[in-house]
Amino acid sequence: ARLDELSCCENSAMDELWEDMQDEGILAANDEPLLASFLFATILNQKTFIDALAFHLANKLSGPSMPNTLLLQLIKEVMEDGEVKHAVRMDLLAIMERDPACTRFIDPFLYYKGFHALQGYRVAHALWNQNRRPLAYFLQSQISKELQVDIHPNAKIGAGTFIDHATGVVIGETAVLGDNVSLLHQVTLGGSGLRDGDRHPKIGDGVLIGAGATLVGDINIGEGTQVGAGSMVYSDIPSHVTAVGVPARIVGKPRTQQPAKEMNQ
Amino acid sequence: ARLDELSCCENSAMDELWEDMQDEGILAANDEPLLASFLFATILNQKTFIDALAFHLANKLSGPSMPNTLLLQLIKEVMEDGEVKHAVRMDLLAIMERDPACTRFIDPFLYYKGFHALQGYRVAHALWNQNRRPLAYFLQSQISKELQVDIHPNAKIGAGTFIDHATGVVIGETAVLGDNVSLLHQVTLGGSGLRDGDRHPKIGDGVLIGAGATLVGDINIGEGTQVGAGSMVYSDIPSHVTAVGVPARIVGKPRTQQPAKEMNQ
Amino acid sequence: ARLDELSCCENSAMDELWEDMQDEGILAANDEPLLASFLFATILNQKTFIDALAFHLANKLSGPSMPNTLLLQLIKEVMEDGEVKHAVRMDLLAIMERDPACTRFIDPFLYYKGFHALQGYRVAHALWNQNRRPLAYFLQSQISKELQVDIHPNAKIGAGTFIDHATGVVIGETAVLGDNVSLLHQVTLGGSGLRDGDRHPKIGDGVLIGAGATLVGDINIGEGTQVGAGSMVYSDIPSHVTAVGVPARIVGKPRTQQPAKEMNQ
Repeated sequence: ARLDELSCCENSAMDELWEDMQDEGILAANDEPLLASFLFATILNQKTFIDALAFHLANKLSGPSMPNTLLLQLIKEVMEDGEVKHAVRMDLLAIMERDPACTRFIDPFLYYKGFHALQGYRVAHALWNQNRRPLAYFLQSQISKELQVDIHPNAKIGAGTFIDHATGVVIGETAVLGDNVSLLHQVTLGGSGLRDGDRHPKIGDGVLIGAGATLVGDINIGEGTQVGAGSMVYSDIPSHVTAVGVPARIVGKPRTQQPAKEMNQ
Repeated sequence: ARLDELSCCENSAMDELWEDMQDEGILAANDEPLLASFLFATILNQKTFIDALAFHLANKLSGPSMPNTLLLQLIKEVMEDGEVKHAVRMDLLAIMERDPACTRFIDPFLYYKGFHALQGYRVAHALWNQNRRPLAYFLQSQISKELQVDIHPNAKIGAGTFIDHATGVVIGETAVLGDNVSLLHQVTLGGSGLRDGDRHPKIGDGVLIGAGATLVGDINIGEGTQVGAGSMVYSDIPSHVTAVGVPARIVGKPRTQQPAKEMNQ
Repeated sequence: ARLDELSCCENSAMDELWEDMQDEGILAANDEPLLASFLFATILNQKTFIDALAFHLANKLSGPSMPNTLLLQLIKEVMEDGEVKHAVRMDLLAIMERDPACTRFIDPFLYYKGFHALQGYRVAHALWNQNRRPLAYFLQSQISKELQVDIHPNAKIGAGTFIDHATGVVIGETAVLGDNVSLLHQVTLGGSGLRDGDRHPKIGDGVLIGAGATLVGDINIGEGTQVGAGSMVYSDIPSHVTAVGVPARIVGKPRTQQPAKEMNQ
């Protein structure tokens, strides 16, 4: 019930997640005067969760080629889309649930570059679907330069995704990720060869992929499966198994149905 | 014939590549008003291909330690050198030829950080050869911070190089790469030990090195060879073979003479 | 004797390291007019080693969320702490000793992002110990975004540490590193699972960890041991051995007591 309330109330009179974040922001600003101005600008002066996220992303992704004011308008417009709105909340809740070092919503919201990169991708993906591809490419490039995560705007990524640490993650044009997936840094979901069409991995719900794992080609990773850190994967892996090594071999089963939620890489 | 025309005409009355890019820029600015100002500044208001590239790189690599105006002058002067001029065009054409997601010249020119990092290296390398080493180190450091590619300015890199995705690539002081090489992200061409002199890999023409592969020491990788993603390479590999694993072993032959052009990692 | 003099004299009338750096700065500014303004601002106009380092780091780590002036004050205050002061000098001396491409103190000081990231972490760690955790998280996040090194502020890292190339390094919350450790880029000292408490590697004095190695869990790596590039380590490794592979196996012994000082990855 708590999770439902936190994930779905942007337009209702009562947005519990946003209220929690405002409370956290007030405490944090009192605790640390040096951060007060940043917290007021980014959290406390904002009206809604989406306003705050658009403001923060615009500051992260702007540069000489696009002022943050223009980017703010664009991100805000795109994020008002219902599907994006839902996914960004689920992503934030996923981090809170899965990262033992995380105790407040505002920490991943303000500081986790995997979260910022993923939300930037969600904007780029929506623009891609609106046939504004040049702008989608522009965003992809800014996200790669500023946050070191390179996600093609045509990739499809479900809700409740957690990209931990994030530096060096690459997700290709025809990759598809289900819901509640966790990726560590330096994971590659790469293509193989010059041909068009499907050439990137398809990742099932609840999959965990450890740091530095490389998955290449149009392969299927079944739901609830876990791929070990540093593994190389060139072929399908069934559901609910643990695969490790170069090349990856099945060595057992995860302790739970959704290893993504345990982060036991 | 088309390739010859596109690769060699900076000083001629007719520069087909630059004319194509201007046409693409006009279409793109019409398509997407939010990018128009960026496209005008970077492409449409520039007189030559090199002017545009210098302008764009200066914006990417400037910072508190060096204003973009100063950097613009420097990059432009250095890029007027004939060898650099040729190589930067071959690099752009290589991307167009090898990346199935790329359909316009302006996309890699504006957005691919592997291209930007490589051109920044070409400037640093020219400065190194002019005995302006402090400036070369400065540029190396800015490229590493801003674009996450660390190429020592003394490394030698041939024309027609494609560094895809690019985050985390490291190329050491005495590395040598032939022409038409393709590297994916997180490739290391590293040294071993404290001694001076040759201590980094030598890579033949047309070689493809997959994501996350690590090659260490003064070793030779023969032309037309392919090194699999995630491989570890500590010793020589002959020409025209496919090597994969930790440590890498020869497992077959690439389908073509220049696997770099197929990107079949 | 020379090393003692260089490492310990911030408050004495004679600070040899700082005097050497000022001499190097004058020569460098004469050599390269384009860098003169940067060298005057960062080295020649500064009174002490710590002043210069705080100034440089503030420029590297500031952003829309925190002006460089505020950050400068904060870093300077924290760095006046005796323990930090000692460690930052030992780190700089370590690079000079271990990097064959490095011949002047000002090069790593000005240009090595592994050095900048490590000093940023030292500030964040001191803030963490002063119970200013929100500020510590803020710094961790800026270091990860701007320098691509993600070190949790609670990690413990000894003096004389060298992080070479640095892109993609991740060091988790309960990791402990002894003195005189060398890490290459893309090294992960990662956690495993959701539980609290010790869940990250403990690294002994003088250890060398090669590029892209991934160490996971609450494991001990004995002093003077060397972990090969690209290795995966899930369990303890004794002192003074060489371990390589996926998973890592002991294959021999390093040639010296402190392989970190030989950088023979």
